[in-house]
Formats: sequence, structure tokens, C-alpha cells
Amino acid sequence: MKTILKNGNVINVFTDEIQRADVCIEDGKIIGVGAYADETADVVEDVTGKYICPGFIDGHIHIESTMLTPTELAKLCLPCGTTSIVADPHEIANVCGTDGIEYMLQASKDLPLRVYIALPSCVPATPFDESGATLTADLLRPFYQEERVIGLAEMMNYPGVLFGDKDVLQKINDAKERGKSVDGHAPLLSGKELDTYIATGIQSDHECSTLAEAKEKLQKGQWIMIREGTAAKNLYDLLPLFDEPYSRRCLLVTDDRHPADFVNEGHIDNAIRLAVKLGKSPLTAIRMATIQAAQCFGLSRVGAIAPSYTADLLVLDDLQTVSVRDVYVAGVKVVENKRVQTISAPQIERDLLEKVRHSFHTQTLLPSSFYIPPKAEKCRVIEAVAGQLVTNEKIESVVWEQNNGIDIERDTLKLAVIERHKGMGHIGLGYIRGIGLKKGAIASSVSHDSHNVIVIGTNDEDMSVAANRICAVGGNVVVQDGEIIAEMPLQIAGLMSEQSGEKLAQANEQVRNTVRRLGVKEGIEPFMNMAFVSLPVIPSLKMTTQGLVDVTKFQRVPLYVEE
Amino acid sequence: MKTILKNGNVINVFTDEIQRADVCIEDGKIIGVGAYADETADVVEDVTGKYICPGFIDGHIHIESTMLTPTELAKLCLPCGTTSIVADPHEIANVCGTDGIEYMLQASKDLPLRVYIALPSCVPATPFDESGATLTADLLRPFYQEERVIGLAEMMNYPGVLFGDKDVLQKINDAKERGKSVDGHAPLLSGKELDTYIATGIQSDHECSTLAEAKEKLQKGQWIMIREGTAAKNLYDLLPLFDEPYSRRCLLVTDDRHPADFVNEGHIDNAIRLAVKLGKSPLTAIRMATIQAAQCFGLSRVGAIAPSYTADLLVLDDLQTVSVRDVYVAGVKVVENKRVQTISAPQIERDLLEKVRHSFHTQTLLPSSFYIPPKAEKCRVIEAVAGQLVTNEKIESVVWEQNNGIDIERDTLKLAVIERHKGMGHIGLGYIRGIGLKKGAIASSVSHDSHNVIVIGTNDEDMSVAANRICAVGGNVVVQDGEIIAEMPLQIAGLMSEQSGEKLAQANEQVRNTVRRLGVKEGIEPFMNMAFVSLPVIPSLKMTTQGLVDVTKFQRVPLYVEE
Repeated sequence: MKTILKNGNVINVFTDEIQRADVCIEDGKIIGVGAYADETADVVEDVTGKYICPGFIDGHIHIESTMLTPTELAKLCLPCGTTSIVADPHEIANVCGTDGIEYMLQASKDLPLRVYIALPSCVPATPFDESGATLTADLLRPFYQEERVIGLAEMMNYPGVLFGDKDVLQKINDAKERGKSVDGHAPLLSGKELDTYIATGIQSDHECSTLAEAKEKLQKGQWIMIREGTAAKNLYDLLPLFDEPYSRRCLLVTDDRHPADFVNEGHIDNAIRLAVKLGKSPLTAIRMATIQAAQCFGLSRVGAIAPSYTADLLVLDDLQTVSVRDVYVAGVKVVENKRVQTISAPQIERDLLEKVRHSFHTQTLLPSSFYIPPKAEKCRVIEAVAGQLVTNEKIESVVWEQNNGIDIERDTLKLAVIERHKGMGHIGLGYIRGIGLKKGAIASSVSHDSHNVIVIGTNDEDMSVAANRICAVGGNVVVQDGEIIAEMPLQIAGLMSEQSGEKLAQANEQVRNTVRRLGVKEGIEPFMNMAFVSLPVIPSLKMTTQGLVDVTKFQRVPLYVEE
Repeated sequence: MKTILKNGNVINVFTDEIQRADVCIEDGKIIGVGAYADETADVVEDVTGKYICPGFIDGHIHIESTMLTPTELAKLCLPCGTTSIVADPHEIANVCGTDGIEYMLQASKDLPLRVYIALPSCVPATPFDESGATLTADLLRPFYQEERVIGLAEMMNYPGVLFGDKDVLQKINDAKERGKSVDGHAPLLSGKELDTYIATGIQSDHECSTLAEAKEKLQKGQWIMIREGTAAKNLYDLLPLFDEPYSRRCLLVTDDRHPADFVNEGHIDNAIRLAVKLGKSPLTAIRMATIQAAQCFGLSRVGAIAPSYTADLLVLDDLQTVSVRDVYVAGVKVVENKRVQTISAPQIERDLLEKVRHSFHTQTLLPSSFYIPPKAEKCRVIEAVAGQLVTNEKIESVVWEQNNGIDIERDTLKLAVIERHKGMGHIGLGYIRGIGLKKGAIASSVSHDSHNVIVIGTNDEDMSVAANRICAVGGNVVVQDGEIIAEMPLQIAGLMSEQSGEKLAQANEQVRNTVRRLGVKEGIEPFMNMAFVSLPVIPSLKMTTQGLVDVTKFQRVPLYVEE
């Protein structure tokens, strides 16, 4: 099978040049760029005036953050020109352990979107948390036999690295010994501590938020992944990295990106577009998004339009809007005139699918499960901050006799974090302010990084209904007067839906609107707060399955404040 | 063991910057660049005002062309700042087959010079030649288990690639499957043929002699190795490659370099110096000679001064003369104030050493072995050209009765090529012009690529003495009146000496001077002509062990010309 893309403006990522030429593809591989006679090919596509560009690569993404299966994500990101992603299944691994990694491998096998896997390095993310699994070096090692497993993902446990934790170093060495990459995650780490961290072989960073931080990491030999995700957006602050001498050691990533953003803004194409809009060369941005991402991970056959490269390529309307018209993967047209072709989901072993679809292991929760015994006058209350992951600690007097301490007027609601992985029966109970719910209850199984069940409510009855629903179908739910009035089920590990991106976005929108009807003001996104209210590495006060943690003191604290 | 290089100008190959800082080395590894307190280290070296630079890497060299063992070569190239070489043991493999490769591995093990091996891809170089071995893909494959074997070396057999020769493609695929590099050798190949060649996965080229050729190969994704050797010097013609956007895909190599050149001019430092002298940035040239060479071969821990990198580094006096003062390899000072420290030769298995030391398998040659029966009036005579590898074909009348056709007055000498690998008894006999020898005979075992024994003489007696001497000790010899009057023995495979570079250079000089005394004029280097008189891929008329080959017609031709 031979295809010729006729008379395009071919983008050369080796020389930053644009060449007017044909691209000839045979059996999925680029065999040449030059002049080809039509009659030698099975298919000839005239792309006069258009640009032929290598497919984009997202060097670091969590598929779970899109809440989509790899198949459904492929349908969203292929039209954006993304043909390869490096996925870190950190979230599903926190829930399902090695089964979660295995699921991601099977669910992404032979998709037209190339899904490379970087193994989650830090499961659980913190010892304060009760996750579904603990992944040691021994458990990760066998996965390196998979060709698509290309390295170890973001090493967040920098204290473990600095103090020479044996299992942490073993994980790094296992990757290095096999010639695999080791990615970093060390926001604001600097100076000699950064040196020690890098000296173990950690070769990249996607957490740079300032130019100075990025320059230091570049000087020390790290690849810099410029992140432009949904919440974390660093491109603007790192814009000078698109110039020499820095650009040649940078790539583009999204880390966490919501499904609606793929549709509304795009993916890696969005980052390129933004850089171009801000005055940077599209050729440089494209080079970062293609060959340099490939180089960072040692992928030798993607990222360029040249002989020997796999024919993952895009037809762009122009280089200003980076508007993706057609997408070819291994020479097969998978997006035509902006419409993605049918993609069938890979077969997944039945047992494995059952496991990830049924990841909740809890008893039925009764209203009384949420009862808090009145043991003191005052309690530690978590104060949520709109649009922020950080929380504050408030010491407040509790009116116990009225609704077991819940005070809707003062916006003091009940918060529960329910262990849901191993049927431990642990439930952390307390109070939260700043959410603004006036009626009913909301619950979610998306709660970083252990993904236990979070419930916030105005009464114990609705909280129990919400919690039980989440333990049945996962996702986000809104309950009022004992009835489920809106939900977005996430059946796979409580994190991902098997529905399409469009349907998921609709359900998500319905949940958000319903929450507003229950009194939550515009500007407050309670499910965002819930997703991080249980992550005891972000200040100040967080709730775990075993109660409150004062993150600034790195220790558990009681709910009750004795005078 | 901790060493601090204090207060240097540290060259950063990631950002093309120079940073005033200390470099801290621990247990052979760079642990940081910054400010370090003296008292924390075992050794502190003040390098104020000097430059700290990563060790240089020669990306393609034939050790055999230096005529030195790896140990003796290390003594010459370490003071030039070369800390790593990628060696292709093509010549010794043509003589000794896999034993030759194994010898190179053992003879270069644990040297302070890092010797990486790229496997010779084309042994024999041509089917017209009788070499000592034929190396198939099956014979090469086991060597990939050696960590220092990093790829497949220069694929010269481009017709084999273009026509899809099975064993040729197998060799390429064996390297690719193991994530190893595949180097090219395709002078002047261009257009669709070059595309086909590259499409198999051949990722580099060191044969570019024009900018246009290099640009085409860069555009097609190849790394360009800018060669500055003894005979082939391409740096001047490729000078624009030191500018953007080309420089980031180039590295520096020497390919073939004579030992005297290391002493008189240098090695990779010479190429950098030359580029700087011609107006190019030393930082760019150093980047090519360090991190980019490492990237080309996927060497992740050499080529930069940054945490996690092996402490292979140089102290330079300045960046204009690139004068190398001290050299550290894995943190150990191996060159101090331009003087190389003692290097001990690696242990080599006795049997293996015996094999490579006794690589000549011939019967004693008598004067009568060189007799040419007078069968025609005219013969094809090879005309050597001073300073050139090409030869011309001359049809000449032969005066048989006087000295069996030798005519010293007209500079028609006798030429013999003696098969010496398998005792086949083959001997190619004929005549050569342009050498200028007036008395005696000369012989050599350095004759590309099969390294049979070449003899040129004014009489059969001296030719037999010269040939027998070569078969005993290898190398180059000059004989007059039955006596050896000068020689440079090359005992290892007839290609390399176990002596020091200095002694070898002396012997070489003595041989050259002696040849002059026998009538050879200044400007003519008969041993250079001899080294290529038997290589039937360079036009026009060449002599093999089985007689003359017309290279332009790619066929054997008889000595005698029938009218």
C-alpha cells in the first residue's frame, strides 16, 4: 500500500525548514520526501498549499484525568493532531495496583493513538493515605518487558530520593539499567538538593513554574516539559524557552486535562497555537512537540517526516492557527477533514475488566455511619478556598444538638472520607466550610491520589445515599431528599467512564448545574475541592480515611479541640 | 573519594553557557556544579581562570589506522582531551574475523579511554577480494551482548541495502531491534536511492564532502559526522554546519588518523581548534564533540558536566587554542599538566593473542613465485598517481627478456598481491608505474580492506625476501640486495604494533627515508599507494590475489592484452 501526499509544505524538524514536496508512504512508513509520480501509488492526496507535519506527542499525561478510556480519549485527541502520548497510569494504579497498569496497557493496545506507558513511581503518593495498592520496585519491574513501557514516571517522592530510600532508588535503577527514561516531578527543588535528585538519573521535569527554575533544571541536564494543562498552565511563564539555546531541550505536555478542553481548546496543538500567538516560531514549537519529545524518551521512529520514520503525520491548514485537517497514523488516515474515523476499542481480558469495573469494596453505609459523637465544644474545620487546592484550618464552635454539628447558615457542612479499597471500614469524619451547598449531599470517587470516597452533605441521610451510589457506579453524584438527582458515573476504577467524551461532558455539565441549583455559587467548583480535600501533601488541613492531617506539621490531628 | 575543581569556567553543553563555578565529583560521577566548601573534599584543585569541559568523543575511528593497540592509542589521544571513541574494528575483522573483534574488546577493556565498539558491517568489503573472514549477521549478533558494543558500523554495502540483500538487512535489523545505532557510509548517494538507504534505519553519515550533500542527509534525518582525519579532511567544506539550524545534528570524527598526527596536530581537539580558527563558536564545536556524539549513540552518561554524568572532563587553558591541560576520566586524573599518567595494558586471553599475532598463513615465497610467463607483447599496467587512491590503466609493451618485464628506466616495476589468510597460494602478479623505486623491493601487509601482502620490486629476489619478512612480522619493509634495510613491524594482524606511538612513528619515518634513498621522489608515498592498490572499489585498475580487476567495469581482466 503506497500513498503520496502531493505538493505539500513539508515541515522538517531536523533543519527547521519547510520544503515544497511530496511525501511518499509505503506500508505505514515514510519512504521519502521529494517528487513522486502519481501512477506509482495506490492513493494520491493533493495537499497543495497545506502543511505536512509530524504527529504531535504529549510527553506526560494522566489518561484518568480525562475520565475517558484510552479509546475515547483517542477520539478526542487525534483530531487535535496528537498521535502519541506518554501516559502515567498513576491514578488507576493507586486504586487497582498492577491490575490498573495492565488494564491501561490492554485498553490502549493497537489504538491508532500510540499510547506509551511510564510506570507510576509513587503508589501510594504518601504514607498518610490508604490507597488500593503499594507498588514496590519488584511489582513494577516485570512491566519493563512490555515494549510500550518506556520508563518510570514522575518521581514525586523527592525526600525518598534525597534520603536514599532503597526501594525508590531501586525503581530508578531498574529503569536506567534497561535504558528506559526516568521522569522527574520536583516543583521548586533547587541547588544541591536538585543536584542530588538529578544525580540518581532523573532526566526531566514538568513542574517548572518560573523561568529561573526551568533554566536551572536545563543547565543541570534535564529535559523541560512545558506544561499547558487544564489547571496547571506554565507556557506563558516559560515562553523564553521557545528561544535558543533552550528550545532544543524542551517538549510539550499537558499532565492533567479535562475532556471538554480537548474539544474547546485542543491538546498539544493548543500549546503550539498559544506559543505562536505569543510570537514564537511555529517551527520551534512543532519541533518540541515532535522529534524532541521522541528524543527525550528514546523513541527512534516517531516525530519526523523523513525516511525510516513511521508515517504519523498531520495535514495542517496553516501554521498560525495550527488547524489540523487530516491525521495519518502509520500511514492510515484516521482523521479526515477534521472528522475522526471509527475506532474500535481493544479487547480486554474479562477478569481484568471485571476487576477494574468493580473496584469498590465497602459495606453499605447507613446514615448513622456519618454520625459524629459530640465530644468537645470546638472542632477543627477545613476551610475550602474557591479555585484553590490549598485549604485553611479553622477552629470553630460546634452546635451539636442541631443536625449533628452541620450549620447550613454558616456554611459548615459535614465531610466524610470513606476507605473503599479493602473494606477496612475506615471513615474520616469532620466538617468543611466554603462549599456553599444548601440542600442534599454530593459525593465523588475522584480524590487524589488514593481515590477513596469523599462525601459532603447537609444531612446524614443524603450523605449515605450519595456514598452508596458512588460505591456502586463511581464518579460524581448529587443527592437530594434521598434521591439521585444528577450523576456522572465513572465505572472504571471509579475514575474513568466507558462513555464517549461528548456524553461524559454532558453528564459533567448536568452535575455542575445541579449543584448550582442546590445553592453552590458560580465560581465554586465543589468537585474540584473534593478531589484534593483528601491529599495530605497540600497545605493546610486535609481529611483522610483515618481522620484529619495537619499537612504543615505532617501529622494527624484530632477533630476535637480541647480547651 | 570526593574531588572539587575549584572556581572554573564550566562549559554547559545543554545551554551553550559558561558558568563560573566549582565542579564536585564523587566516586567518579559529577554530583554538582556550584559552590562547594574545600573541607568537604578529599582533593581540591584550583582551576581559576581555566575552562572545565566534558571529555571529547570521536564518533567514528578505526584504531587499526593508527597502527597502535588501544592502550598505546589511549596514551596519544587522552592528552588531546579524547575520553571516548567509537571504534569500528573493520580492518582487523577482515584479517581475523570475530577473533579480531574479540581482540579489540579485550585490548580496550577498562582503559581510561572509553572504547565503544561499532560492529564492522561489511567483511569482506567486496566479493572480488579474498579476506580472512566473512562476517554474517549470525556471527555478529552475539557481540551485541557486550555492553560496549553500541551499534553497527558504517554500512558501505549500499547496493546490498538498495537491492534488499537479506543478510545486509538482517545486520541492520539486529542492531535496531536491540536499540543500537546503525551508521552509514554512502558518499555522494542522493535522492531516492539515499531515501531507500536511510529508510532501513541507517542514522548517520561520515562521508559528506560537500555542504549540499550534508544538508540533504541532515534533512533526511541523519546525524552528520564531520570528518577531519589524516587523508580525508571535510571540516572546511562543511563549515556552515557549525551554524544553526544544522549544528545540533552534527558530531566530529576522524575515521582514519595516523599516529604522528595525534602528536603534531591533535585529535578531536584539532577539529575544534580548526573550527574556532575559521570563526565558529567554540561552544558549538564542543557541544558537537561531546553531548551530541553521546546522543547520536544513545550514550546517556557521558558528554556533559551535570549531575548524574560520569566525570570525564577536561581542564582547558582557553577556548581559542583549546589547549588541554588536565584530563579526568571517571573522576581520575589521567593527564596532568599535559602529561599522560601510566596506563597498563588490559590482559588478553593467551590463545586469542597468539591468533592475532600470527595471522599470516602462507608458504615460503621463492623468487620464482614472482615469475610472470611472457604470454603477450602488451600488458595492462597499473599507473599509480601521487597522493591519490585512484589508479589509471595503461596498456604497455613489455620487454620480457630483460628482468621479466621490469623496466626501472621507464619506472615499470613488478607488483604482487599474495593471499595470506588461508594458505590458498593465490598470488596476483603484474606491473605498476609511478612508484619510482630504483633498487630493491618494498612490501606491506596494510592493504585495504583485506590486508593481503603487497610487494613492489625491482627484482624477484628482493621481492621474495620482502614478502617473507612481512609474512613473519607484518607491517612495512624495505629490502635491498637481499637484506632488510628498514622495517616497521606490525605484529597484531599485520596491522598494529604493540610498541608505543613514538617508537612506531620513528620506525615509520625510517622506512619513509629509506625508500627515498632507493630512488622514490619527495611527494610520492609508495606505502600509501600500496595500501589501496588492492581495493577493487576505487577506480580504475586494481590488483587482487587473483589478478587484475577493472573497477570501472566491475570485472576481472587479464594481465595480457591480445592484439
